[in-house]
Amino acid sequence: MEEKPLIFISNDDSINAPGLRRLVDCVKCLGDVVVVAPELPQSGMSSAMTINSPLRVKQYDDYNGAKMYSVNGTPVDCVKLPLHTFLDRMPNLVVTGINHGSNAGNNILYSGTMGAAFEGAMVGIPSIGFSILSHSMDVDFSHCAPHITNIARKILENGLPYRTCLNVNFPVGEIKGIKVVRTAISHWTEEYMKYTDPHGKDFYWLTGSIINEEPDCDETDLYWLDRGYATIVPAQTSQDATALIEPLKKIF
Amino acid sequence: MEEKPLIFISNDDSINAPGLRRLVDCVKCLGDVVVVAPELPQSGMSSAMTINSPLRVKQYDDYNGAKMYSVNGTPVDCVKLPLHTFLDRMPNLVVTGINHGSNAGNNILYSGTMGAAFEGAMVGIPSIGFSILSHSMDVDFSHCAPHITNIARKILENGLPYRTCLNVNFPVGEIKGIKVVRTAISHWTEEYMKYTDPHGKDFYWLTGSIINEEPDCDETDLYWLDRGYATIVPAQTSQDATALIEPLKKIF
Repeated sequence: MEEKPLIFISNDDSINAPGLRRLVDCVKCLGDVVVVAPELPQSGMSSAMTINSPLRVKQYDDYNGAKMYSVNGTPVDCVKLPLHTFLDRMPNLVVTGINHGSNAGNNILYSGTMGAAFEGAMVGIPSIGFSILSHSMDVDFSHCAPHITNIARKILENGLPYRTCLNVNFPVGEIKGIKVVRTAISHWTEEYMKYTDPHGKDFYWLTGSIINEEPDCDETDLYWLDRGYATIVPAQTSQDATALIEPLKKIF
Repeated sequence: MEEKPLIFISNDDSINAPGLRRLVDCVKCLGDVVVVAPELPQSGMSSAMTINSPLRVKQYDDYNGAKMYSVNGTPVDCVKLPLHTFLDRMPNLVVTGINHGSNAGNNILYSGTMGAAFEGAMVGIPSIGFSILSHSMDVDFSHCAPHITNIARKILENGLPYRTCLNVNFPVGEIKGIKVVRTAISHWTEEYMKYTDPHGKDFYWLTGSIINEEPDCDETDLYWLDRGYATIVPAQTSQDATALIEPLKKIF
Protein backbone atom coordinates (compact mmCIF):
# COMPACT_ATOMS: atom_id res chain seq x y z
CA MET A 1 0.00 0.00 0.00
CA GLU A 2 1.37 3.39 -0.95
CA GLU A 3 2.30 5.62 1.96
CA LYS A 4 0.29 8.81 2.28
CA PRO A 5 2.18 12.12 2.08
CA LEU A 6 3.29 13.43 5.48
CA ILE A 7 2.21 17.01 6.12
CA PHE A 8 4.02 18.84 8.91
CA ILE A 9 2.29 21.79 10.57
CA SER A 10 3.65 24.51 12.83
CA ASN A 11 2.81 28.13 13.70
CA ASP A 12 3.90 31.00 15.92
CA ASP A 13 0.67 31.60 17.84
CA SER A 14 1.24 28.46 19.95
CA ILE A 15 -0.26 24.99 20.24
CA ASN A 16 -3.48 26.56 21.59
CA ALA A 17 -4.24 28.87 18.65
CA PRO A 18 -7.52 28.26 16.76
CA GLY A 19 -5.76 28.91 13.42
CA LEU A 20 -3.51 25.89 13.99
CA ARG A 21 -6.49 23.52 14.28
CA ARG A 22 -8.20 25.08 11.25
CA LEU A 23 -5.03 24.39 9.26
CA VAL A 24 -5.19 20.72 10.30
CA ASP A 25 -8.81 20.63 9.10
CA CYS A 26 -7.78 22.14 5.73
CA VAL A 27 -4.97 19.69 4.88
CA LYS A 28 -6.16 16.48 6.59
CA CYS A 29 -7.61 15.24 3.28
CA LEU A 30 -4.13 15.41 1.66
CA GLY A 31 -2.18 13.01 3.88
CA ASP A 32 -1.03 12.12 7.38
CA VAL A 33 -0.63 15.19 9.57
CA VAL A 34 1.76 15.89 12.43
CA VAL A 35 1.68 19.17 14.37
CA VAL A 36 4.63 20.58 16.34
CA ALA A 37 3.91 24.10 17.59
CA PRO A 38 5.42 26.41 20.21
CA GLU A 39 4.23 25.88 23.77
CA LEU A 40 3.85 29.67 24.16
CA PRO A 41 3.07 32.45 21.64
CA GLN A 42 6.08 33.38 19.49
CA SER A 43 4.86 36.22 17.27
CA GLY A 44 7.65 38.33 15.79
CA MET A 45 10.29 35.64 16.38
CA SER A 46 11.45 35.55 12.75
CA SER A 47 14.03 32.74 12.22
CA ALA A 48 15.17 32.81 15.87
CA MET A 49 16.35 29.50 17.30
CA THR A 50 17.23 28.30 20.77
CA ILE A 51 20.95 27.66 21.22
CA ASN A 52 21.67 28.24 24.88
CA SER A 53 18.85 26.54 26.75
CA PRO A 54 17.23 23.09 26.84
CA LEU A 55 14.18 22.21 24.77
CA ARG A 56 11.37 19.95 25.90
CA VAL A 57 8.67 18.19 23.88
CA LYS A 58 5.11 17.62 25.13
CA GLN A 59 2.54 15.38 23.45
CA TYR A 60 -1.18 16.20 23.52
CA ASP A 61 -4.35 14.36 22.51
CA ASP A 62 -4.65 13.85 18.76
CA TYR A 63 -6.74 16.46 16.97
CA ASN A 64 -8.78 15.37 13.93
CA GLY A 65 -6.41 12.45 13.34
CA ALA A 66 -3.25 14.59 13.67
CA LYS A 67 -0.50 13.92 16.22
CA MET A 68 -0.05 17.05 18.35
CA TYR A 69 3.20 18.14 20.06
CA SER A 70 4.60 21.35 21.52
CA VAL A 71 8.20 22.53 21.99
CA ASN A 72 9.13 25.20 24.55
CA GLY A 73 10.97 27.23 21.94
CA THR A 74 10.63 29.22 18.73
CA PRO A 75 8.84 28.31 15.49
CA VAL A 76 12.22 27.35 13.97
CA ASP A 77 12.91 25.03 16.94
CA CYS A 78 9.51 23.41 16.29
CA VAL A 79 10.69 22.47 12.78
CA LYS A 80 14.36 21.66 13.47
CA LEU A 81 13.96 19.54 16.58
CA PRO A 82 11.36 16.98 15.38
CA LEU A 83 12.98 16.66 11.95
CA HIS A 84 16.26 15.69 13.60
CA THR A 85 14.88 13.68 16.52
CA PHE A 86 11.45 12.05 16.82
CA LEU A 87 9.89 12.20 13.31
CA ASP A 88 10.27 8.80 11.64
CA ARG A 89 10.15 10.15 8.07
CA MET A 90 10.73 13.43 6.24
CA PRO A 91 7.58 15.47 5.62
CA ASN A 92 6.48 16.01 2.01
CA LEU A 93 5.07 19.43 2.81
CA VAL A 94 5.44 21.99 5.61
CA VAL A 95 2.49 24.32 6.23
CA THR A 96 2.46 26.96 8.95
CA GLY A 97 -0.27 29.08 10.49
CA ILE A 98 -3.01 29.92 9.99
CA ASN A 99 -1.44 32.99 11.53
CA HIS A 100 -3.75 35.34 13.40
CA GLY A 101 -2.50 38.55 11.76
CA SER A 102 -0.97 39.75 8.49
CA ASN A 103 2.41 38.59 7.26
CA ALA A 104 2.20 40.72 4.13
CA GLY A 105 4.54 43.63 3.40
CA ASN A 106 7.70 43.77 5.47
CA ASN A 107 6.07 41.67 8.23
CA ILE A 108 7.55 38.69 6.38
CA LEU A 109 11.02 39.43 7.82
CA TYR A 110 9.82 39.34 11.44
CA SER A 111 7.16 36.67 11.19
CA GLY A 112 7.56 33.49 13.23
CA THR A 113 5.01 31.78 10.97
CA MET A 114 7.26 32.51 8.00
CA GLY A 115 10.34 31.64 10.11
CA ALA A 116 8.93 28.10 10.39
CA ALA A 117 8.14 28.03 6.64
CA PHE A 118 11.67 29.23 5.77
CA GLU A 119 13.03 26.46 8.01
CA GLY A 120 11.07 23.88 6.07
CA ALA A 121 12.47 25.35 2.85
CA MET A 122 15.98 25.31 4.35
CA VAL A 123 15.86 21.53 4.69
CA GLY A 124 14.49 21.17 1.14
CA ILE A 125 10.79 20.62 1.89
CA PRO A 126 8.16 22.61 -0.07
CA SER A 127 6.75 24.99 2.53
CA ILE A 128 3.86 27.43 2.80
CA GLY A 129 2.99 29.99 5.48
CA PHE A 130 -0.70 30.94 5.75
CA SER A 131 -2.00 34.09 7.48
CA ILE A 132 -5.27 35.96 7.82
CA LEU A 133 -5.50 39.73 8.28
CA SER A 134 -7.04 39.65 11.75
CA HIS A 135 -5.52 39.21 15.19
CA SER A 136 -8.85 38.01 16.60
CA MET A 137 -8.83 34.49 18.04
CA ASP A 138 -12.49 34.25 16.93
CA VAL A 139 -11.89 35.17 13.27
CA ASP A 140 -13.91 33.18 10.72
CA PHE A 141 -11.61 31.03 8.53
CA SER A 142 -14.42 29.55 6.40
CA HIS A 143 -13.68 31.67 3.30
CA CYS A 144 -10.00 30.81 3.17
CA ALA A 145 -10.31 27.09 4.04
CA PRO A 146 -10.97 25.81 0.46
CA HIS A 147 -8.15 28.00 -0.89
CA ILE A 148 -5.72 26.58 1.68
CA THR A 149 -6.62 23.00 0.71
CA ASN A 150 -6.21 23.86 -2.97
CA ILE A 151 -2.87 25.70 -2.59
CA ALA A 152 -1.43 22.93 -0.38
CA ARG A 153 -2.58 20.26 -2.86
CA LYS A 154 -1.01 22.06 -5.82
CA ILE A 155 2.34 22.50 -4.06
CA LEU A 156 2.28 18.88 -2.90
CA GLU A 157 1.82 17.89 -6.56
CA ASN A 158 4.16 20.42 -8.19
CA GLY A 159 6.81 21.01 -5.52
CA LEU A 160 8.83 24.21 -5.21
CA PRO A 161 12.46 24.99 -6.17
CA TYR A 162 15.12 24.29 -3.52
CA ARG A 163 14.96 26.66 -0.56
CA THR A 164 11.88 28.53 -1.67
CA CYS A 165 8.48 28.75 0.00
CA LEU A 166 5.22 30.67 -0.24
CA ASN A 167 3.85 33.48 1.93
CA VAL A 168 0.05 33.34 1.59
CA ASN A 169 -2.18 36.02 3.12
CA PHE A 170 -5.99 36.15 3.22
CA PRO A 171 -8.29 39.11 3.72
CA VAL A 172 -11.07 38.72 6.28
CA GLY A 173 -14.41 37.63 4.78
CA GLU A 174 -15.14 36.84 1.15
CA ILE A 175 -12.17 36.39 -1.18
CA LYS A 176 -12.43 37.92 -4.66
CA GLY A 177 -9.59 35.86 -6.10
CA ILE A 178 -5.91 34.95 -5.73
CA LYS A 179 -2.94 37.00 -6.94
CA VAL A 180 0.66 35.80 -7.23
CA VAL A 181 2.67 38.94 -6.46
CA ARG A 182 5.75 40.31 -4.71
CA THR A 183 6.08 41.84 -1.25
CA ALA A 184 5.15 45.53 -1.13
CA ILE A 185 8.03 47.78 -0.11
CA SER A 186 6.75 48.93 3.24
CA HIS A 187 7.76 49.79 6.78
CA TRP A 188 6.27 50.15 10.23
CA THR A 189 5.86 53.54 11.86
CA GLU A 190 7.31 51.76 14.90
CA GLU A 191 6.02 53.98 17.64
CA TYR A 192 6.87 53.03 21.19
CA MET A 193 4.46 53.85 24.01
CA LYS A 194 6.38 55.09 27.03
CA TYR A 195 5.16 54.22 30.54
CA THR A 196 6.38 54.62 34.09
CA ASP A 197 6.12 51.62 36.40
CA PRO A 198 4.92 51.84 40.06
CA HIS A 199 8.57 52.15 41.14
CA GLY A 200 9.14 55.23 38.98
CA LYS A 201 11.13 53.44 36.26
CA ASP A 202 10.38 53.92 32.56
CA PHE A 203 9.49 51.14 30.16
CA TYR A 204 8.47 50.97 26.49
CA TRP A 205 6.00 48.89 24.51
CA LEU A 206 6.08 48.47 20.72
CA THR A 207 3.12 49.64 18.66
CA GLY A 208 2.75 51.28 15.22
CA SER A 209 1.20 50.47 11.88
CA ILE A 210 2.42 49.40 8.45
CA ILE A 211 3.02 51.98 5.72
CA ASN A 212 2.90 50.87 2.08
CA GLU A 213 5.66 52.79 0.26
CA GLU A 214 4.15 51.99 -3.15
CA PRO A 215 0.36 52.10 -2.58
CA ASP A 216 -0.53 52.31 -6.29
CA CYS A 217 1.57 49.35 -7.45
CA ASP A 218 -0.66 46.44 -8.49
CA GLU A 219 2.24 43.95 -8.41
CA THR A 220 2.31 43.79 -4.60
CA ASP A 221 0.61 41.89 -1.79
CA LEU A 222 -0.59 44.95 0.16
CA TYR A 223 -2.31 46.36 -2.95
CA TRP A 224 -4.43 43.25 -3.54
CA LEU A 225 -5.14 42.45 0.11
CA ASP A 226 -6.55 45.97 0.45
CA ARG A 227 -8.91 45.10 -2.40
CA GLY A 228 -10.21 41.80 -1.00
CA TYR A 229 -7.89 39.35 -2.80
CA ALA A 230 -5.72 36.63 -1.28
CA THR A 231 -2.02 36.92 -2.16
CA ILE A 232 0.73 34.37 -2.77
CA VAL A 233 4.31 35.69 -2.54
CA PRO A 234 7.14 33.32 -3.49
CA ALA A 235 10.02 33.69 -1.04
CA GLN A 236 13.49 32.23 -0.50
CA THR A 237 15.83 31.54 2.40
CA SER A 238 18.67 33.47 0.74
CA GLN A 239 19.07 37.14 1.61
CA ASP A 240 22.04 37.63 -0.75
CA ALA A 241 22.07 40.80 -2.85
CA THR A 242 24.12 39.25 -5.65
CA ALA A 243 23.68 42.24 -7.98
CA LEU A 244 25.94 44.21 -5.62
CA ILE A 245 28.91 41.84 -5.80
CA GLU A 246 30.52 43.34 -8.92
CA PRO A 247 29.99 47.02 -7.93
CA LEU A 248 31.43 46.32 -4.47
CA LYS A 249 34.48 44.60 -5.92
CA LYS A 250 35.43 47.99 -7.35
CA ILE A 251 35.35 49.57 -3.89
CA PHE A 252 37.14 46.83 -1.92
CA MET B 1 31.06 73.55 12.56
CA GLU B 2 30.12 70.47 10.55
CA GLU B 3 28.50 67.69 12.55
CA LYS B 4 30.46 64.45 12.71
CA PRO B 5 28.78 61.30 11.29
CA LEU B 6 26.83 59.32 13.89
CA ILE B 7 27.80 55.66 14.03
CA PHE B 8 25.36 53.33 15.74
CA ILE B 9 26.66 50.04 17.14
CA SER B 10 24.81 46.94 18.30
CA ASN B 11 25.49 43.19 18.57
CA ASP B 12 23.92 39.95 19.74
CA ASP B 13 26.53 38.85 22.28
CA SER B 14 25.31 41.49 24.80
CA ILE B 15 26.56 44.76 26.22
CA ASN B 16 29.34 42.85 28.03
CA ALA B 17 30.94 41.20 24.97
CA PRO B 18 34.58 42.11 24.23
CA GLY B 19 33.85 42.24 20.48
CA LEU B 20 31.42 45.13 21.05
CA ARG B 21 34.14 47.29 22.63
CA ARG B 22 36.67 46.37 19.94
CA LEU B 23 34.14 47.57 17.35
CA VAL B 24 33.89 50.92 19.15
CA ASP B 25 37.70 51.15 19.04
CA CYS B 26 37.69 50.44 15.28
CA VAL B 27 35.14 53.09 14.23
CA LYS B 28 35.71 55.82 16.86
CA CYS B 29 37.97 57.70 14.42
CA LEU B 30 35.08 57.99 11.92
CA GLY B 31 32.51 59.91 13.99
CA ASP B 32 30.43 60.05 17.14
CA VAL B 33 29.55 56.61 18.43
CA VAL B 34 26.48 55.38 20.32
CA VAL B 35 26.12 51.77 21.44
CA VAL B 36 22.80 50.06 22.19
CA ALA B 37 23.26 46.33 22.80
CA PRO B 38 21.16 43.57 24.34
CA GLU B 39 21.30 43.27 28.11
CA LEU B 40 21.69 39.49 27.76
CA PRO B 41 23.21 37.28 25.01
CA GLN B 42 20.92 36.93 21.97
CA SER B 43 22.79 34.61 19.62
CA GLY B 44 20.58 32.95 17.01
CA MET B 45 17.80 35.53 17.43
CA SER B 46 17.66 36.44 13.72
CA SER B 47 15.25 39.37 13.14
CA ALA B 48 13.16 38.55 16.22
CA MET B 49 11.55 41.51 17.95
CA THR B 50 9.69 41.97 21.23
CA ILE B 51 5.98 42.61 20.76
CA ASN B 52 4.30 41.27 23.88
CA SER B 53 6.45 42.45 26.77
CA PRO B 54 7.88 45.74 28.04
CA LEU B 55 11.35 46.97 27.12
CA ARG B 56 13.69 48.84 29.43
CA VAL B 57 16.78 50.89 28.65
CA LYS B 58 19.84 51.07 30.93
CA GLN B 59 22.70 53.54 30.53
CA TYR B 60 26.29 52.62 31.42
CA ASP B 61 29.56 54.53 31.75
CA ASP B 62 30.86 55.82 28.42
CA TYR B 63 33.44 53.60 26.75
CA ASN B 64 36.21 55.25 24.68
CA GLY B 65 33.98 58.29 24.12
CA ALA B 66 30.92 56.24 23.11
CA LYS B 67 27.56 56.43 24.89
CA MET B 68 26.64 52.93 26.10
CA TYR B 69 23.08 51.60 26.58
CA SER B 70 21.43 48.20 26.89
CA VAL B 71 17.88 47.07 26.08
CA ASN B 72 16.37 43.92 27.66
CA GLY B 73 15.38 42.57 24.25
CA THR B 74 16.62 41.29 20.92
CA PRO B 75 19.22 42.83 18.57
CA VAL B 76 16.35 44.20 16.42
CA ASP B 77 14.82 45.84 19.51
CA CYS B 78 18.20 47.46 20.18
CA VAL B 79 18.00 49.17 16.78
CA LYS B 80 14.26 49.92 16.59
CA LEU B 81 13.75 51.31 20.07
CA PRO B 82 16.49 53.98 20.22
CA LEU B 83 15.85 55.10 16.62
CA HIS B 84 12.22 55.78 17.49
CA THR B 85 12.70 57.08 21.03
CA PHE B 86 15.87 58.50 22.58
CA LEU B 87 18.33 59.05 19.71
CA ASP B 88 18.32 62.75 18.77
CA ARG B 89 19.43 62.20 15.16
CA MET B 90 19.47 59.38 12.58
CA PRO B 91 22.74 57.44 12.42
CA ASN B 92 24.79 57.67 9.22
CA LEU B 93 26.03 54.10 9.62
CA VAL B 94 25.00 51.02 11.59
CA VAL B 95 27.74 48.52 12.47
CA THR B 96 27.11 45.35 14.46
CA GLY B 97 29.38 42.87 16.19
CA ILE B 98 32.16 42.08 16.30
CA ASN B 99 30.32 38.79 16.65
CA HIS B 100 32.10 36.03 18.52
CA GLY B 101 31.44 33.28 15.96
CA SER B 102 30.91 32.86 12.21
CA ASN B 103 27.96 34.36 10.39
CA ALA B 104 29.08 32.95 7.06
CA GLY B 105 27.11 30.34 5.10
CA ASN B 106 23.51 29.86 6.15
CA ASN B 107 24.26 31.26 9.63
CA ILE B 108 23.25 34.61 8.13
CA LEU B 109 19.55 33.69 8.38
CA TYR B 110 19.70 32.95 12.12
CA SER B 111 22.26 35.56 13.19
CA GLY B 112 21.20 38.22 15.67
CA THR B 113 24.23 40.30 14.62
CA MET B 114 22.91 40.29 11.07
CA GLY B 115 19.35 40.79 12.39
CA ALA B 116 20.51 44.13 13.80
CA ALA B 117 22.29 44.98 10.52
CA PHE B 118 19.18 44.10 8.48
CA GLU B 119 17.17 46.35 10.80
CA GLY B 120 19.52 49.25 10.08
CA ALA B 121 19.09 48.54 6.36
CA MET B 122 15.30 48.36 6.81
CA VAL B 123 15.21 51.97 7.98
CA GLY B 124 17.49 53.06 5.12
CA ILE B 125 20.82 53.31 6.94
CA PRO B 126 23.94 51.71 5.38
CA SER B 127 24.66 48.79 7.71
CA ILE B 128 27.45 46.27 8.22
CA GLY B 129 27.62 43.16 10.40
CA PHE B 130 31.13 42.05 11.47
CA SER B 131 31.99 38.58 12.77
CA ILE B 132 35.12 36.57 13.57
CA LEU B 133 35.32 32.79 13.26
CA SER B 134 35.85 32.08 16.94
CA HIS B 135 33.42 31.81 19.85
CA SER B 136 36.21 32.59 22.35
CA MET B 137 35.70 35.71 24.44
CA ASP B 138 39.52 36.08 24.44
CA VAL B 139 39.97 35.98 20.67
CA ASP B 140 42.55 38.40 19.25
CA PHE B 141 40.86 41.03 17.04
CA SER B 142 44.09 42.85 16.10
CA HIS B 143 44.31 41.47 12.55
CA CYS B 144 40.77 42.45 11.63
CA ALA B 145 40.72 45.89 13.31
CA PRO B 146 42.29 47.89 10.42
CA HIS B 147 40.02 46.13 7.90
CA ILE B 148 36.94 47.04 9.96
CA THR B 149 37.95 50.70 10.06
CA ASN B 150 38.59 50.66 6.32
CA ILE B 151 35.33 48.90 5.37
CA ALA B 152 33.26 51.16 7.64
CA ARG B 153 34.97 54.28 6.20
CA LYS B 154 34.31 53.20 2.61
CA ILE B 155 30.63 52.49 3.27
CA LEU B 156 30.26 55.78 5.13
CA GLU B 157 31.69 57.52 2.03
CA ASN B 158 29.94 55.47 -0.67
CA GLY B 159 26.69 54.41 0.98
CA LEU B 160 24.77 51.28 0.04
CA PRO B 161 21.57 50.83 -2.01
CA TYR B 162 18.24 51.04 -0.11
CA ARG B 163 17.66 48.07 2.20
CA THR B 164 20.99 46.39 1.60
CA CYS B 165 23.80 45.71 4.05
CA LEU B 166 27.07 43.79 4.29
CA ASN B 167 27.87 40.54 6.09
CA VAL B 168 31.62 40.63 6.84
CA ASN B 169 33.42 37.62 8.31
CA PHE B 170 37.06 37.36 9.42
CA PRO B 171 39.23 34.28 9.88
CA VAL B 172 41.19 34.03 13.12
CA GLY B 173 44.78 35.31 12.87
CA GLU B 174 46.45 36.86 9.83
CA ILE B 175 44.23 37.89 6.93
CA LYS B 176 45.47 37.12 3.40
CA GLY B 177 43.06 39.55 1.72
CA ILE B 178 39.40 40.45 1.26
CA LYS B 179 36.93 38.82 -1.13
CA VAL B 180 33.51 40.16 -2.13
CA VAL B 181 31.48 36.99 -2.62
CA ARG B 182 28.07 35.35 -2.12
CA THR B 183 26.85 33.14 0.70
CA ALA B 184 27.82 29.48 0.28
CA ILE B 185 24.84 27.16 -0.04
CA SER B 186 25.19 25.28 3.20
CA HIS B 187 23.27 23.70 6.07
CA TRP B 188 23.77 22.57 9.63
CA THR B 189 23.82 18.90 10.55
CA GLU B 190 21.55 20.02 13.40
CA GLU B 191 22.13 17.24 15.84
CA TYR B 192 20.30 17.43 19.13
CA MET B 193 21.87 15.96 22.26
CA LYS B 194 19.25 14.15 24.31
CA TYR B 195 19.45 14.21 28.10
CA THR B 196 17.32 13.08 31.04
CA ASP B 197 16.84 15.53 33.90
CA PRO B 198 17.02 14.51 37.61
CA HIS B 199 13.23 14.06 37.57
CA GLY B 200 13.36 11.55 34.72
CA LYS B 201 12.13 13.92 32.04
CA ASP B 202 13.86 14.22 28.66
CA PHE B 203 15.29 17.43 27.23
CA TYR B 204 17.24 18.33 24.10
CA TRP B 205 20.09 20.73 23.37
CA LEU B 206 21.04 21.96 19.89
CA THR B 207 24.50 21.16 18.52
CA GLY B 208 25.85 20.29 15.05
CA SER B 209 28.20 21.76 12.50
CA ILE B 210 27.94 23.57 9.19
CA ILE B 211 28.20 21.65 5.90
CA ASN B 212 29.27 23.52 2.76
CA GLU B 213 27.18 22.10 -0.11
CA GLU B 214 29.54 23.57 -2.74
CA PRO B 215 33.01 23.24 -1.19
CA ASP B 216 34.89 23.79 -4.48
CA CYS B 217 33.10 27.01 -5.50
CA ASP B 218 35.44 29.99 -5.25
CA GLU B 219 32.56 32.51 -5.42
CA THR B 220 31.45 31.84 -1.82
CA ASP B 221 32.25 33.03 1.68
CA LEU B 222 32.96 29.59 3.17
CA TYR B 223 35.51 28.83 0.43
CA TRP B 224 37.62 31.93 1.12
CA LEU B 225 37.27 31.91 4.90
CA ASP B 226 38.67 28.35 4.86
CA ARG B 227 41.68 29.75 3.01
CA GLY B 228 42.44 32.63 5.40
CA TYR B 229 40.63 35.48 3.61
CA ALA B 230 38.04 37.86 5.03
CA THR B 231 34.74 37.88 3.12
CA ILE B 232 32.18 40.59 2.35
CA VAL B 233 28.71 39.36 1.30
CA PRO B 234 26.18 41.97 0.15
CA ALA B 235 22.75 41.16 1.58
CA GLN B 236 19.23 42.59 1.46
CA THR B 237 16.17 42.71 3.68
CA SER B 238 13.94 41.25 0.94
CA GLN B 239 13.43 37.51 0.85
CA ASP B 240 11.25 37.62 -2.27
CA ALA B 241 11.89 34.99 -4.93
CA THR B 242 10.64 37.17 -7.78
CA ALA B 243 11.79 34.74 -10.49
CA LEU B 244 9.03 32.38 -9.32
CA ILE B 245 6.15 34.81 -9.79
CA GLU B 246 5.50 34.07 -13.47
CA PRO B 247 5.85 30.24 -13.20
CA LEU B 248 3.51 30.23 -10.18
CA LYS B 249 0.90 32.32 -12.00
CA LYS B 250 0.50 29.34 -14.35
CA ILE B 251 -0.32 27.04 -11.41
CA PHE B 252 -2.67 29.35 -9.48
